[in-house]
Amino acid sequence: MSRQNKLVLPMGYKAAGMHAGIKKGEKKDLALLVSETPASIAGVFTTNQVKAASVKLCRERLAGGKATAIVINSGNANACTGEAGIRDARQMGHVTAEALGVDEATVFVCSTGHIGRPLPMDVIEPGIRKVAQSVSQDGGLDAADAIMTTDTHSKHHTAELKVDGKAVRVLGLAKGAGMIEPNMATMLSFIMTDAAVAPDALQACLSAAVNDSFNRITVDGDRSTNDTVLMMANGEAGNEPLKKGHPDWEAFCQAVNEVTLALAMRIVADGEGVTTCVTVRVKGAVSDEDADLAARAVANSLLVKTSWAGKYANWGRVMDCLGYSRAKVQEDLVDIDYDELPAVRGGMSAGTSQEQFREVTGRAQYAIVVDLHLGSGEALVYSCDCTEEYVRLNM
Amino acid sequence: MSRQNKLVLPMGYKAAGMHAGIKKGEKKDLALLVSETPASIAGVFTTNQVKAASVKLCRERLAGGKATAIVINSGNANACTGEAGIRDARQMGHVTAEALGVDEATVFVCSTGHIGRPLPMDVIEPGIRKVAQSVSQDGGLDAADAIMTTDTHSKHHTAELKVDGKAVRVLGLAKGAGMIEPNMATMLSFIMTDAAVAPDALQACLSAAVNDSFNRITVDGDRSTNDTVLMMANGEAGNEPLKKGHPDWEAFCQAVNEVTLALAMRIVADGEGVTTCVTVRVKGAVSDEDADLAARAVANSLLVKTSWAGKYANWGRVMDCLGYSRAKVQEDLVDIDYDELPAVRGGMSAGTSQEQFREVTGRAQYAIVVDLHLGSGEALVYSCDCTEEYVRLNM
Repeated sequence: MSRQNKLVLPMGYKAAGMHAGIKKGEKKDLALLVSETPASIAGVFTTNQVKAASVKLCRERLAGGKATAIVINSGNANACTGEAGIRDARQMGHVTAEALGVDEATVFVCSTGHIGRPLPMDVIEPGIRKVAQSVSQDGGLDAADAIMTTDTHSKHHTAELKVDGKAVRVLGLAKGAGMIEPNMATMLSFIMTDAAVAPDALQACLSAAVNDSFNRITVDGDRSTNDTVLMMANGEAGNEPLKKGHPDWEAFCQAVNEVTLALAMRIVADGEGVTTCVTVRVKGAVSDEDADLAARAVANSLLVKTSWAGKYANWGRVMDCLGYSRAKVQEDLVDIDYDELPAVRGGMSAGTSQEQFREVTGRAQYAIVVDLHLGSGEALVYSCDCTEEYVRLNM
Repeated sequence: MSRQNKLVLPMGYKAAGMHAGIKKGEKKDLALLVSETPASIAGVFTTNQVKAASVKLCRERLAGGKATAIVINSGNANACTGEAGIRDARQMGHVTAEALGVDEATVFVCSTGHIGRPLPMDVIEPGIRKVAQSVSQDGGLDAADAIMTTDTHSKHHTAELKVDGKAVRVLGLAKGAGMIEPNMATMLSFIMTDAAVAPDALQACLSAAVNDSFNRITVDGDRSTNDTVLMMANGEAGNEPLKKGHPDWEAFCQAVNEVTLALAMRIVADGEGVTTCVTVRVKGAVSDEDADLAARAVANSLLVKTSWAGKYANWGRVMDCLGYSRAKVQEDLVDIDYDELPAVRGGMSAGTSQEQFREVTGRAQYAIVVDLHLGSGEALVYSCDCTEEYVRLNM
């Protein structure tokens, strides 16, 4: 398995991205990903009860199991837009299907941007017709650009492996949870592979990968109305369909994991105003669920996140979060480390001075490891600091 | 019932506050509240599993039902300090009891300040002996000053009423959740009344009042290791002991509510960097519990709080929070108002422009009212904005 920075699409895919006029200025705001043959499709969506129109449509179409295209607009979330929003999302799919000459039921639609405003269909419809004419094997970077909202750079990651001795590529694109304009709040990721994958196996592989990557990052604890991860597998590599039991199944899942984790880490690092990424690892909890509760309490605490920005090993605030998390905690058993330095032993100061911590807390990335010493439950959350810049960007 | 700004202690109480040397400089850091006769005592404490030594000691002594004194230090939380911390808290009580000539079991101890550092008993012990000699009926303001950490001003509120035709006074002191120095994170409040109140009734009255006031405020969603509310009732007013059924019981509870709510509102307004206080009211939930979940999701959202700082009516972020709260929400039924202006109707924009919202969102205090239209559950949370100043102060 190797990493590549060059954006080569897997076999049988084309892509394009352009400025249709949803965003002001000349920023790209419309992307199209096309599989030349119907691909198996899997998806993971926001658990928010308030869902964007595009999320509702994607969930509905996922049942069909096949995808030929994903059309994505940025600059407008098409969320909280009622029946008209649903009609607009369907119309995006309809125009895309017509322009590509594919079955409308195999076209997926995603949106990201402002909540509560009608989609400007007068620019989106001609935009789709235009972008559909410009899809090519070289269009991946344009597509990656066009799905961005407030990301400072586009995000993609490729993994390569052999399946049945045939070269397989897994390419992921993502946009982050950067939210500098009011109402922006979405993570989108699209994964394309030329491997053949059995439909149920594809969903299982994607769900597991998302759970260990995108579901483990937090910038501000706010879950969006539009979060969507879609994965297409078109089988152009010519391998036997992958599923559990196939000799290359584990390697394939690992490749997908590599892609989603790499993208997830880039999303955290590109959160607004972020200067420090901190991995919060909790072990020794009575269960994995408890470990998760404890890790998220720490990773989402405003006081902890501001202390990270201040490059201060404020373990008292970490103890405080553990205590109010819904995880079982016994104060005098708690150990906490900041990378290689002990901060807390048995619920009390380990005696490490702030001077000693300074080098660790100044790192661009470090880990806080909590051992609750109550069991074998473990969890991991990737978080980042909260700086004045974050507040300024989100005011 | 009337409000007074002058700090007259209820009958039979004395107080003092001074600089003992826990804090640097000359700021007061040691307070003593004394009831000349043993008072009934009630208490409400942090639900955090990590509890300061003083909280553990107060909970233990509450069982005795009587208080003669509360000694409070600021500048050091005596939390995460292990067995030595418990010994120090006991010693604070012991020295106070000796100096006042009272039963040690009736002395309550509170601490607020840095987590994880040993109490400087070398300055606290002589400090207690000194402050015990200076208690007087005029010492209330000094005590209010001495419990502050990063509050910008001391907080007190008095309610007066007649019980059995006799004048009764309810005085509350509080310090806030302002946390500008690392590790600071505590709310303390002390309520003194000269009314006679049956012990069980006192606890019921206090618990109800705390639930509708201190438990409904949020500055950053972080619950501290030290939060404590103690109430003393010494009966010097000479009334028949108050309890349910007494003709003045409701009026007394209302007076206590008035005091705790006034103090709670001042704590929010004095949160670090706060420019705007926002009351989040949720109604129409399937239950009061659901309404509470929804209100707290909105009131604690970093994205919502930064939008308040930006004076922007970002109702899309409010919809997002409602959706991911664990409360039942049906998107197309949701209505949201900002004071008198409709923001959302049926889950969609009510058509009010940001220009129209500007006057409301610029107010020092306004309300966001959410109607979920699913039932009759209601809840109220008092919150505040998150500004760059908050981050700077907590780094």
